[in-house]
Amino acid sequence: MLGNFFGPKSIAVIGVSRSPEKVGHVILRNLIDGGFKGKIFVVNPNAEEILQFTSYASITDVKDAVDLAIIAVPTEEVVKVVEQCGKKGIRDVIIVTSGFREVGNHVLDRKLEKMLAKYAIRCVGPNCLGCFDAHTKVDSLFLPRYRLTRPKEGGISFICQSGAVGSAILDLATEEGYGFAKFCSYGNAMNVDESDIMEYLGTDEKTKVICLYVEGIMDGKKFLRAAKKVSAKKPVIAIKGGTTEQGAKATLSHTGSLAGSAEIYAGAFRQAGVIQAHSLEEMFNYAKILEKSMRPAGDRVLVITNGGGYGILSTDAIVRNGLQMAAFSAPVARQLRKAMPSLVTIANPLDLVGDATTARYKAALDAALSDSNVDAVLLIVLYQTPLITTDIVDVIIEANDLKKKPIAVVSTGGEFTELLKKKLEEQNIPCYTFPEQAVGALRALVGYHIKK
Amino acid sequence: MLGNFFGPKSIAVIGVSRSPEKVGHVILRNLIDGGFKGKIFVVNPNAEEILQFTSYASITDVKDAVDLAIIAVPTEEVVKVVEQCGKKGIRDVIIVTSGFREVGNHVLDRKLEKMLAKYAIRCVGPNCLGCFDAHTKVDSLFLPRYRLTRPKEGGISFICQSGAVGSAILDLATEEGYGFAKFCSYGNAMNVDESDIMEYLGTDEKTKVICLYVEGIMDGKKFLRAAKKVSAKKPVIAIKGGTTEQGAKATLSHTGSLAGSAEIYAGAFRQAGVIQAHSLEEMFNYAKILEKSMRPAGDRVLVITNGGGYGILSTDAIVRNGLQMAAFSAPVARQLRKAMPSLVTIANPLDLVGDATTARYKAALDAALSDSNVDAVLLIVLYQTPLITTDIVDVIIEANDLKKKPIAVVSTGGEFTELLKKKLEEQNIPCYTFPEQAVGALRALVGYHIKK
Repeated sequence: MLGNFFGPKSIAVIGVSRSPEKVGHVILRNLIDGGFKGKIFVVNPNAEEILQFTSYASITDVKDAVDLAIIAVPTEEVVKVVEQCGKKGIRDVIIVTSGFREVGNHVLDRKLEKMLAKYAIRCVGPNCLGCFDAHTKVDSLFLPRYRLTRPKEGGISFICQSGAVGSAILDLATEEGYGFAKFCSYGNAMNVDESDIMEYLGTDEKTKVICLYVEGIMDGKKFLRAAKKVSAKKPVIAIKGGTTEQGAKATLSHTGSLAGSAEIYAGAFRQAGVIQAHSLEEMFNYAKILEKSMRPAGDRVLVITNGGGYGILSTDAIVRNGLQMAAFSAPVARQLRKAMPSLVTIANPLDLVGDATTARYKAALDAALSDSNVDAVLLIVLYQTPLITTDIVDVIIEANDLKKKPIAVVSTGGEFTELLKKKLEEQNIPCYTFPEQAVGALRALVGYHIKK
Repeated sequence: MLGNFFGPKSIAVIGVSRSPEKVGHVILRNLIDGGFKGKIFVVNPNAEEILQFTSYASITDVKDAVDLAIIAVPTEEVVKVVEQCGKKGIRDVIIVTSGFREVGNHVLDRKLEKMLAKYAIRCVGPNCLGCFDAHTKVDSLFLPRYRLTRPKEGGISFICQSGAVGSAILDLATEEGYGFAKFCSYGNAMNVDESDIMEYLGTDEKTKVICLYVEGIMDGKKFLRAAKKVSAKKPVIAIKGGTTEQGAKATLSHTGSLAGSAEIYAGAFRQAGVIQAHSLEEMFNYAKILEKSMRPAGDRVLVITNGGGYGILSTDAIVRNGLQMAAFSAPVARQLRKAMPSLVTIANPLDLVGDATTARYKAALDAALSDSNVDAVLLIVLYQTPLITTDIVDVIIEANDLKKKPIAVVSTGGEFTELLKKKLEEQNIPCYTFPEQAVGALRALVGYHIKK
C-alpha cells in the first residue's frame, strides 16, 4: 500500500528553488546524486530549467504519470499544491513543509486534511524529512549529503517521529557501516502514521528488522494490532521518548502528541512482542544482531576470549541479563582438553590466555559449534596480543558461514582492530566494542526468538 | 614512592632477544620509538649489540646507575635476575614474565617474594604489562605499537589488574583521542598493589582522574584507606569484574584473587568516595568529563538542542539519573524570549528547532551561563541541519573557556560531525554520541563534587 513512497517509477519535486541551499533544490540534487533510477519532474513556476531538468509551472502541466510528489513549497501554498496533485491523479505525497499543527496552526491543518481526503491522497508528513530507500534511492531528506551521509544497502529499516533524531542516527549508522533498507520520518502523521509504515515494512522483503523512535502514538489500538502482526514476522525494536513525566511534558511541546506513562508503553510493547530499547545506542546494538543473526536454539552462551578480564565482565553481563552460561558437554570438553595447552582451563568463559593463537581460536569455535549444550557464542578477540594473526578473521567468517549458531564478536581497540572488525561486519557478523553491549544484544536476540 | 616506575632517569631491559617479535625486544623497540628520554641499558648474555645498544651479559656489568629494571627473562631465570638487580642496587623492577601464582606455581612465587624482600625491591608484576607514562614515555607494554597505539598526553590514569583489558582500552582510548597520564597493569601484585599505585597517582600532578579495573582486592582495609584519601583529592572511578557469582568463579581461575560479593564492593566503593562504573564504556564516559570539567554548583541541568527528540530523550535521562531539570529565572527567560524567534519555546529542554543558527546557540549559551538557576549545560548540536555553521565550534569553545559552568556536548553523526567533535575535544570539552551517555557522565560529575 505504501509502495509508491519507496519504489515509485517517477517522482515530482514540487517547489525546487534555483538556490542550491534551499530545501527543494537539495532534494532534487540528492535524487540525482543518489542515483534514483526513475523519472524525475521538477516544478517551479519561476524557472525554465533547474539542474538540466525542465521546470514545470505546475504539476498539472506534467503529461507523464507521476507516482510520488515531494512537496517542498512554502506553508501557505501547500493546500493548493495538494489540490493540483489530486487533479493530476497523484495519490502519494510527501510534504516536508512545516508550519501546521506543530506550531498551533490548526485551521490550516484541517484544510490540508480535507484536501487530502477529497482526493484520497496518502501523505507522509507534513513537517517531516520523509522517505529514504537505500535500494531504490528515493530520498526526500532535505539535508545535503556532505552533512548527512547516506547508509549503504542492508536490512535495517527505521521509522522515526523526530526528523533530527532520524537524520543524526542515519548519519552515524553510515559511519559505522550499518546497512539500511528504508527510512521514514513521518512528522505530523496526518494520514500515514507509524503503524501504517510498520505494517508496510512487515511485508517488505528487504527489511529484516524494524527500528522505531516514537514520542507519542496517536492510535494505541491500531499500533498494538499492527505491532503484533509485524513482530510475529520480524523483530521490531522501539524506543519511546518522553517516558518520564518531565520528558512527556517536553514531548507535548515538540510534536503535540500525548506521551503517556512509561509503564503503559512498556506493557504495550511487551504485549505486542516489541523489543523496547532504552537508549538510541541500545537500539542499534540490538538491530545489528537481529538483522544479521540466526535464531538461537536456547539461551546458553559460551564465552571464548583471549583476555581473562573480558571473560569475567562478559560472565557478569550474561548473568545480569538473565541469560545462561553454557557448560561444555563431557565429550566436547575432553576433546578440547587434548587440543589446548595445559594453561587453558576448559571452562566457560573459555580463556585462551595471552598467547592465544588463531589455531586455538579455531579449535574453540569448532568445539562450541559442535556442542549441543551451547546455543550462542560470544567471541572476544583482542587483536593487541602478539600471536593473533589477521587470518583469524577468516576463521570466524567460516564458522559463521556454517550457520549453526549465532556468533557475536567483541573487539576493543584502535585502527588495527577497527580494520579487522570491518571485515567481519561486511560478512554479516555483528561486532561490538564492549562485552556489555554484545550481551545486551544477545539478550534481545534470545528474547525475540525464544523467550517471547 | 613509585616515582621510578614512571619517571626513571635510566632503564635496563633484561632479557632482550634478538628476535623482533619477542617480548624483551618489543619493549626495547617501544622505548626507542616512543621517545624515552633517559638512558637505556640492554641485557642479553648471548648478544653483543641489539638495535645499536651494547648488550650486557648481566645487569651487574652495567656501571651506571639504573633506576628501573624491566625483566622479561624466562620464568625460571626471574629469581636469579632479581638477585642480580638487588646486588646492583636497583630498587624498582617491573617483571612482565608470567608463570607464577596465576598458574599454581606457589613454590616459585615464594622464592621470588623472598628475594624481593631480601633486597627491599619494589616490584610491579609479575605476570603483567607493567607501566606506561604518556609524558615520560616509560613503556614496558610488550605489545607492538602497530597493534596497540599509545594514547596522547592527558589527565586520565588507569590502573588495571587485567593486562588484556588494559591494552584493549588503551588502544581504544587512543583511537578516540583520550589523553592519558599513566597506565599500570600490575598483574599478580606481589608487593605493589592497586592501593599503592592509587596512592601514588593521588600525588601525581599530571593525573586528574584515576580509573581502576579490579577483579579482586587483596587488602580491603588498605584499599579503603587509600581510596578515601585519594578520592578526596581527585575522582577515582572503579569497575569491578566478577560481581556476579559466576563472574566471581571466573575471577578465581583468572588471577587467583577472591572476588567477593557485588554488594560488599558497591558498599566499599561508596564508603570510600569511589565512583563505581558498571561497564568499561561507562568508565571512560565518566573519566572524560571528570578529567575536563569544572565543579558544578549544583545538579540543575539545562538542555539546549536543535533536535526536539534529543531534548526529550535527554530529559528522560536526566530524571532517571536523579538530576534536576533547570528552570530559567524570570529575567533570563524574558531576555531569551526577545532574542529567539516565536517558534522557540523558552523552556527546558530549550529546543532551538530545525532552523537553528549558530547565533541562536550563542544566545542560548549566554543565557545559560548567566543564569544562577542553571548549574550545568547539556548542549546538543546536530550538525546535519542546514543552518548550523562550522564556527559553532568557536562559540562553544569560547563559552567553555569562561569556566562558568560545566558544558557537555552531544553530537551524533558521521564524518562531518566527528570532525567538529574532535575540535571540541581538543579544547577540553567532553563530547558524547548519545544523550544518555552524556547525562550518565554529568551524574558522575555532580555525584563526585556535590552529592558525596
